[in-house]
Amino acid sequence: MGYTALLSRMGQVNDVLNAKSVLAWDARTKMPPGGAETRAKQIATLSVMARDMVADDETLRLVESAEAEVQHHGADTVERAIVARVREAAEYHRRIPAALVEARAELGSVGQDIWARARAADDFASFAPHVEKTVALNREMAEHIGYSGHPYDALMHRFEPGETVATLKPLFARLRQAMLPLLRAIADRPAPRVDFLERNYPVDAQLAFGLKMAERIGYDLTRGRLDTTVHPFEVSFTRQDVRITTRVNANWMPMSLFGSLHEAGHALYEQNVDPAYTRTPLATDLIGLYAVGGVSFGAHESQSRLFENHVGRSREFWELNFPEAQAAYPDQLHDIDADTFWRAINRVQPGFIRVEADELTYDFHIMLRVDIEAALIDGSLSVKDLPEAWNAKIKEYLGLDVPSNRLGVLQDVHWSSGQIGTFCNYTIGNVMAGQLYETAVRDNAVADGLARADYAPLRQWMTDHVHTHGRRYSRDELLVRATGRTLDPEPYIAHLTAKYSDIYGLPHAA
Amino acid sequence: MGYTALLSRMGQVNDVLNAKSVLAWDARTKMPPGGAETRAKQIATLSVMARDMVADDETLRLVESAEAEVQHHGADTVERAIVARVREAAEYHRRIPAALVEARAELGSVGQDIWARARAADDFASFAPHVEKTVALNREMAEHIGYSGHPYDALMHRFEPGETVATLKPLFARLRQAMLPLLRAIADRPAPRVDFLERNYPVDAQLAFGLKMAERIGYDLTRGRLDTTVHPFEVSFTRQDVRITTRVNANWMPMSLFGSLHEAGHALYEQNVDPAYTRTPLATDLIGLYAVGGVSFGAHESQSRLFENHVGRSREFWELNFPEAQAAYPDQLHDIDADTFWRAINRVQPGFIRVEADELTYDFHIMLRVDIEAALIDGSLSVKDLPEAWNAKIKEYLGLDVPSNRLGVLQDVHWSSGQIGTFCNYTIGNVMAGQLYETAVRDNAVADGLARADYAPLRQWMTDHVHTHGRRYSRDELLVRATGRTLDPEPYIAHLTAKYSDIYGLPHAA
Repeated sequence: MGYTALLSRMGQVNDVLNAKSVLAWDARTKMPPGGAETRAKQIATLSVMARDMVADDETLRLVESAEAEVQHHGADTVERAIVARVREAAEYHRRIPAALVEARAELGSVGQDIWARARAADDFASFAPHVEKTVALNREMAEHIGYSGHPYDALMHRFEPGETVATLKPLFARLRQAMLPLLRAIADRPAPRVDFLERNYPVDAQLAFGLKMAERIGYDLTRGRLDTTVHPFEVSFTRQDVRITTRVNANWMPMSLFGSLHEAGHALYEQNVDPAYTRTPLATDLIGLYAVGGVSFGAHESQSRLFENHVGRSREFWELNFPEAQAAYPDQLHDIDADTFWRAINRVQPGFIRVEADELTYDFHIMLRVDIEAALIDGSLSVKDLPEAWNAKIKEYLGLDVPSNRLGVLQDVHWSSGQIGTFCNYTIGNVMAGQLYETAVRDNAVADGLARADYAPLRQWMTDHVHTHGRRYSRDELLVRATGRTLDPEPYIAHLTAKYSDIYGLPHAA
Repeated sequence: MGYTALLSRMGQVNDVLNAKSVLAWDARTKMPPGGAETRAKQIATLSVMARDMVADDETLRLVESAEAEVQHHGADTVERAIVARVREAAEYHRRIPAALVEARAELGSVGQDIWARARAADDFASFAPHVEKTVALNREMAEHIGYSGHPYDALMHRFEPGETVATLKPLFARLRQAMLPLLRAIADRPAPRVDFLERNYPVDAQLAFGLKMAERIGYDLTRGRLDTTVHPFEVSFTRQDVRITTRVNANWMPMSLFGSLHEAGHALYEQNVDPAYTRTPLATDLIGLYAVGGVSFGAHESQSRLFENHVGRSREFWELNFPEAQAAYPDQLHDIDADTFWRAINRVQPGFIRVEADELTYDFHIMLRVDIEAALIDGSLSVKDLPEAWNAKIKEYLGLDVPSNRLGVLQDVHWSSGQIGTFCNYTIGNVMAGQLYETAVRDNAVADGLARADYAPLRQWMTDHVHTHGRRYSRDELLVRATGRTLDPEPYIAHLTAKYSDIYGLPHAA
């Protein structure tokens, strides 16, 4: 009885959080400008209601009753997992004072405007007080959440449960050790031509071709749709309705194509969660208060990066699919061959802006942010020294002198929203993608499929080993079940080394 | 303190109901087909939460505290009105057992499919059991809601508060008395040509021209947008975001044009509710559980019909705006003049289908439905005799023999949804539109505006006398304040008589 009642209540929480996601999708894709103010209130109300429903005494009472009921079930049963997820979330939210949650939401609601004006004026000083407050509130939040190592661990928990500063440190060190020499070696080599990617590609043709490639890797349009937005994203309202967006630059064709493939990779995760988990805590992030089936932000990113990079930027993919690109863009690609195209879409070019970074330099943008955030939270870096620390890291990693804070510390929206702890998932996603892809292609069906442009076996492997499980296992449990080990950067490093050695004519042992 | 807390709580109810409306809009305009099942659950959850928040003990406690606080305010103050609306709604919902509400929602959720299949197969017998259950549940609902005259009064209350079978009877009799002779006289006269309305009008051009005319009458696109749907509608998510939809037939141009004007009329109401009422019970239907500023469905329909018919189908409107129609459709309208166009869009043609009915025959479709629903509810008509009763009325009013139930009793979706009592508002809207328009044009600024295609003074008059008040006054209070009297069919009858006498060459005393 308690278990059924708990499931019913958590089903309502899932409904409310999905409703919140619909409101957010609409706000970013369809809403007329006048709607912003009252829409923010509607979203805030749904957030508060969902939090209250998870944190209140009634839920704890149902959890206790359900625990008594399911204790005779095996430890590895769905029922036990569900009850455990709810208890963990209820306790998490009960530890954080509602006033603190409100204060951070309030800070986030004013921050976007402060940040946008500071960025436009290239004026870090006017943004600094907001960052100070954000750091202070998040530090207080960390104390309530609790941690055993570093206070930043408590903040990452919401996005990447289990990840810690202590585990990230050796991971980042190994990545830098392998990737910096690769980057240095590439800098001395001639760059592949990319001029033909800057020809005029009509917007509608780009959207159609991107969607066609998204469907080819398995995106199901009877449960999805594509729209355009300034910042691309994927969002789901249960596995039955999983939407993606992309942005289009008429003179830079890779933007929308790889944007669509990236978001479609996210969408595959959500569309293929076990249907039995729909509306349950195994398809609801009760801690982050987000209706999502993916077990962590990093695990989610592994799927977007895998289908964008390991599949969509592979030589094999374009050997097979380039004729269709030519058919879609006859005027623009008639004088180009698959190999030239493949080299162009993999060009490495260190730059200032994270969201424009290529596959090889992206992680450096992430590592510097994670390190900086952790230092802000533990007090070893003060906000006033932030631009200097930022610029020093860009110089160290990418060899560039940051000419203005607009191209540096002011580029990301994240801190304006009041959130700290969100960045590590991108690099974890890259590492996981390498690890999962390496294991998947050992499966003959997967490898044979890739060799004939049939991505269904790969998608099915990911579904069987990742997607279907939703939030039943932790990220590391999932990795161990799928690949036999926890997070391991070597397959990712091997992938980068092989690909870029090939494109840039480096000795393979780089 | 109680009043502020009550306002805050009702603000959350408004947020939840607006969220529900966003989900419904999305389901009808953007949602991929796979999303239907879980979307229905999300909408149901938001409904239940909103109802519970209005009906629970906490709200009643806040009402009592707020009543004590505002009792020294004048009887005509906003505060008193707000507290009274909440008490009325709380008591309304507390009278109806939650199980009954759920049973009706459940019936509605299965009904659409039963109805769609029955209609496709032209098989009333397979739909009849659903109608039986709908009638029985609604009769039970009426007993809980309470009434002093006819049980149907209790059901209309949700849509048209204060309206009763006793008040509708003489209204309908007067309309029939005046309109039937007009209809008979028209039947003997030659019909205006409409062939040119069936030329090919490109869909995009139709949407653009309809939206241009909608903006001309005052629809604000910074707080709105137009989409296409199978069934056109207007929906608002506070006055800041008021959306309309239309449907387009490439070979019947009036459909989208007048659909857009009709829905824009509804939108004007919502866009112009006093901003101070945003998120309050004066912009929330706490009984119908719908985030709407209009005081009743009939009052709402008065605005859509006024801008569609009194403005959009008037000779004056096309004398001034026809050149723009010609510019929008040069190939289709180059050989047509404003007078010919105006006559064509006002052609009277009795038919079987309500939603395709012209201005003169529409009310007959309504009156027969209201009479039939009331008879079903009081038991004087049984479901098995429904098709016969329907067909007899169509014969009596429109002189037509209904050839099949698909074109008769099976045409409307309404009964499949579990709802009874929704129909009277269409005719009340027509009557109100006539009464308000007659009063408005006595204002020189309004009349001068109409004479030079400036609809701002008319829109402003409607805002001052109708829109801005939201749900502060009852429909009849609103009418008395605006026109000096309660519902009066004579201006509407005079409008119809004058217009159709003109078009069909009848003596004006018809």
